[in-house]
Amino acid sequence: MITMDAIKPGDTVLVYIDDSRKFVVKVTPGKILGTDKGFIKHEELVGRLYGEAVATSQGVKALLLRPLRHDYSSTVRRITQIIYPKDASLMIYYSGVKPGSIVGEAGVGSGVLTLSLAEIVGESGLVYGFDVNEKALENAKEHLEIHGLSSRVRLVKHDVREPLGVAGLDAFFLDMPDPWNALESVYQAVKPAGTVLAYVPTVNQVEKTVLAMERHGGFGDVHAYETLLREYSVEEGATRPHTLMVGHTGFIVFARKIMVS
Amino acid sequence: MITMDAIKPGDTVLVYIDDSRKFVVKVTPGKILGTDKGFIKHEELVGRLYGEAVATSQGVKALLLRPLRHDYSSTVRRITQIIYPKDASLMIYYSGVKPGSIVGEAGVGSGVLTLSLAEIVGESGLVYGFDVNEKALENAKEHLEIHGLSSRVRLVKHDVREPLGVAGLDAFFLDMPDPWNALESVYQAVKPAGTVLAYVPTVNQVEKTVLAMERHGGFGDVHAYETLLREYSVEEGATRPHTLMVGHTGFIVFARKIMVS
Amino acid sequence: MITMDAIKPGDTVLVYIDDSRKFVVKVTPGKILGTDKGFIKHEELVGRLYGEAVATSQGVKALLLRPLRHDYSSTVRRITQIIYPKDASLMIYYSGVKPGSIVGEAGVGSGVLTLSLAEIVGESGLVYGFDVNEKALENAKEHLEIHGLSSRVRLVKHDVREPLGVAGLDAFFLDMPDPWNALESVYQAVKPAGTVLAYVPTVNQVEKTVLAMERHGGFGDVHAYETLLREYSVEEGATRPHTLMVGHTGFIVFARKIMVS
Amino acid sequence: MITMDAIKPGDTVLVYIDDSRKFVVKVTPGKILGTDKGFIKHEELVGRLYGEAVATSQGVKALLLRPLRHDYSSTVRRITQIIYPKDASLMIYYSGVKPGSIVGEAGVGSGVLTLSLAEIVGESGLVYGFDVNEKALENAKEHLEIHGLSSRVRLVKHDVREPLGVAGLDAFFLDMPDPWNALESVYQAVKPAGTVLAYVPTVNQVEKTVLAMERHGGFGDVHAYETLLREYSVEEGATRPHTLMVGHTGFIVFARKIMVS
Repeated sequence: MITMDAIKPGDTVLVYIDDSRKFVVKVTPGKILGTDKGFIKHEELVGRLYGEAVATSQGVKALLLRPLRHDYSSTVRRITQIIYPKDASLMIYYSGVKPGSIVGEAGVGSGVLTLSLAEIVGESGLVYGFDVNEKALENAKEHLEIHGLSSRVRLVKHDVREPLGVAGLDAFFLDMPDPWNALESVYQAVKPAGTVLAYVPTVNQVEKTVLAMERHGGFGDVHAYETLLREYSVEEGATRPHTLMVGHTGFIVFARKIMVS
Repeated sequence: MITMDAIKPGDTVLVYIDDSRKFVVKVTPGKILGTDKGFIKHEELVGRLYGEAVATSQGVKALLLRPLRHDYSSTVRRITQIIYPKDASLMIYYSGVKPGSIVGEAGVGSGVLTLSLAEIVGESGLVYGFDVNEKALENAKEHLEIHGLSSRVRLVKHDVREPLGVAGLDAFFLDMPDPWNALESVYQAVKPAGTVLAYVPTVNQVEKTVLAMERHGGFGDVHAYETLLREYSVEEGATRPHTLMVGHTGFIVFARKIMVS
Repeated sequence: MITMDAIKPGDTVLVYIDDSRKFVVKVTPGKILGTDKGFIKHEELVGRLYGEAVATSQGVKALLLRPLRHDYSSTVRRITQIIYPKDASLMIYYSGVKPGSIVGEAGVGSGVLTLSLAEIVGESGLVYGFDVNEKALENAKEHLEIHGLSSRVRLVKHDVREPLGVAGLDAFFLDMPDPWNALESVYQAVKPAGTVLAYVPTVNQVEKTVLAMERHGGFGDVHAYETLLREYSVEEGATRPHTLMVGHTGFIVFARKIMVS
Repeated sequence: MITMDAIKPGDTVLVYIDDSRKFVVKVTPGKILGTDKGFIKHEELVGRLYGEAVATSQGVKALLLRPLRHDYSSTVRRITQIIYPKDASLMIYYSGVKPGSIVGEAGVGSGVLTLSLAEIVGESGLVYGFDVNEKALENAKEHLEIHGLSSRVRLVKHDVREPLGVAGLDAFFLDMPDPWNALESVYQAVKPAGTVLAYVPTVNQVEKTVLAMERHGGFGDVHAYETLLREYSVEEGATRPHTLMVGHTGFIVFARKIMVS
């Protein structure tokens, strides 16, 4: 049976005009979404079905969609460099995080990964989000509330280079300049055979992180990866990759906690 | 509090010797895991902690780990070409699948994606796995049982080019040679603004799929992607990408169901 | 012994401010080079050594260099899409073109490849440049004169889908939308075991070109390639690929003429 | 007019069976080319046209072609890791080397780049090949003789970290583990605004080379690149990149000599 999926006040909707005009809206009658292609009154959204199109005040077509994880990166406020969907997807997949997982993350940054993790751990899971930057934590809190995910996340102002006071985590995500300085904290926080994923922009940081893991002794199955995403322009008889692409975002280091003998 | 994570009979363990020697074992006292680096008796695993190492009969070190999604691709029986972790991760991330999602998949093939989807939808979710090949369904069933996930998956012998008899699905994954012939079935099965992901090996299939989606009219935000994964060899002062890499697996087409007006 | 390499009137100089400010100047006392970083009077260049720096009227440093082949792509007038250095280099290398070679090219387009070929065939070689567009031929002529290479090139207004009236060429370069329509002309023009290189932007054109070569029967060792160039940003302890890259230019088809038996 | 291009004793011929069976033969009646697909007597080649096919003793078809630069990498004896065609082509293109150029190279290694450079500088040019390894020099000498290029190359046993005793070179190619130690020698050897190209396998060497160039002060327009070559498998309606590719060979550092002020 199909639920008719009508949009109600309080719903979080992705208003999609085109790839560079995507807006996440918490439907609030009385409010207006302004864009350079015209405005849309929130009350016009109420009662519409997901998947339907509305017209802006300039007559431009806008699709009403559900915000997905990979939409977050184009809709959150960017406090710091974000983790791209091509990287977040691989990190989450390799981490083994699933419904019920208890996960750590540092730093929270713009909160894109936090949102995705909160979604995947489900109601029975938990995400600890550590950051030294109060502003980042406030921003993440706001985004988590818009998406109705705040009950699954504990945001903590803390420097992960210091002991974390948590243990038994299934996985830990490090998005910080010096992950090698957090290895002992993370080792203590993660359960045996749990996963650790670090995201760093330079090759030098990859080298330092991997070597520090080897010296530490408590990390096995260590791998360093880079992902590239190519988009294709599809036309009948004229299909080809896009001319411009993102050539680099960050490198991913994967490891599993092993018992030091 | 930390659970000590001791391995018990019936547990599913990843025995990891190196990247080309990874074995998923359902711990069954009396059984033996044979490898070209020596054997391990299952009873030796019982009582060990995850993250610990044991020695094979030849004295080679083997780590006892939890099987993760990206380990599946090296441990399942390959009936058909599998979807690689670099691709499965992006597809799942973009699909928006999460705990509680109801998802369709065709074909099931070697079952790698089925396992991952079953894990992510959690106990409150459901995966419909369609395939015309009975052998593929049996193989998937076996793997799902090993991983304790069979209650979340309904395996159905059915050709998805025919109506599916389900509706309101959150997402649909197509891993078949001619996804364009399944578009109407999938359109009927997916809820408004739900996602559709197709995986095809050739550029011609990308073109046909995208053009068929455009002609159908019920698919929006259509994109075609390709992912590349590069692994790095890390040594102090000598870090570089691996010499050989997988240069191509398949292309990914993403779309969302939109209401035909 | 070192020639002192002082710049004289009539010399062709590359004035290099930065990667997006490169100017090819035929030194003509009385003339002025204007840039958004200030101007430089041509007479200031006379007597300077190559490799020296001068200052613009705004005090910005500009290096005096020799224009190289890969500078052409940023300094010629772009009549049509140019062949990028990453592609031109591979095409020329694979073509086997060398001093004394007699080479065909169609179309001439913006003339970047023409300039490079003229340079490599040397004074004893010859380039036939075919184009149906008179403007392209005039533009190429002008650039060849600036670089002192016009005596090595015969520019011909001609449609290469018609017989070319030349024979025994060492190599032929096709930069046109439908190379498959020029295969018989090219086959007649190239010497036995001579090389043919086609440059096309879409995968569909690659497929059509290769299949047409196979059907024709007179082409062997046929290969289709794509090149990617990644630039690195180098800083002490912070080395990484550039964030943005050119993700696609064109595909290259290589073949050798074989005798039809 | 077409020369009939008949093969004579003493000619250098590429006998091409398939991509992994390419043989360079100096035609010597009385000799036999042995392959795992059967043998061919050299006298059977005499009088044949380039582009023709002959049959091996096992009836396998072999094309008679001219050895091209990119064939060298599959036909020379590999003393050291070779520079791949995808890299050699870019390096030569960016170097500006052309007929008449005087060029330096260190080390000579397996001699693949030496052969290409010798071909491009022509009869009026000259290549200095430096290597500390006598065996490499002998091997290069042999290959240059087979290809009739030895008169254009001076092979010198010398460590390029010491002054070279040459000056005014148009370009210098460094294929050695520590190019940073050769920068002053190279600076003295190259003419003002001449080019320098280094080829190194690791990111750390890229960083050290570029930083040493910046500290030296005599190098401008410094860039670090990496090239990737993807080959496509073309079939009607089923065109796609090859499954396996070479994911990494080496990085290229480009610079021009500038006058130290």
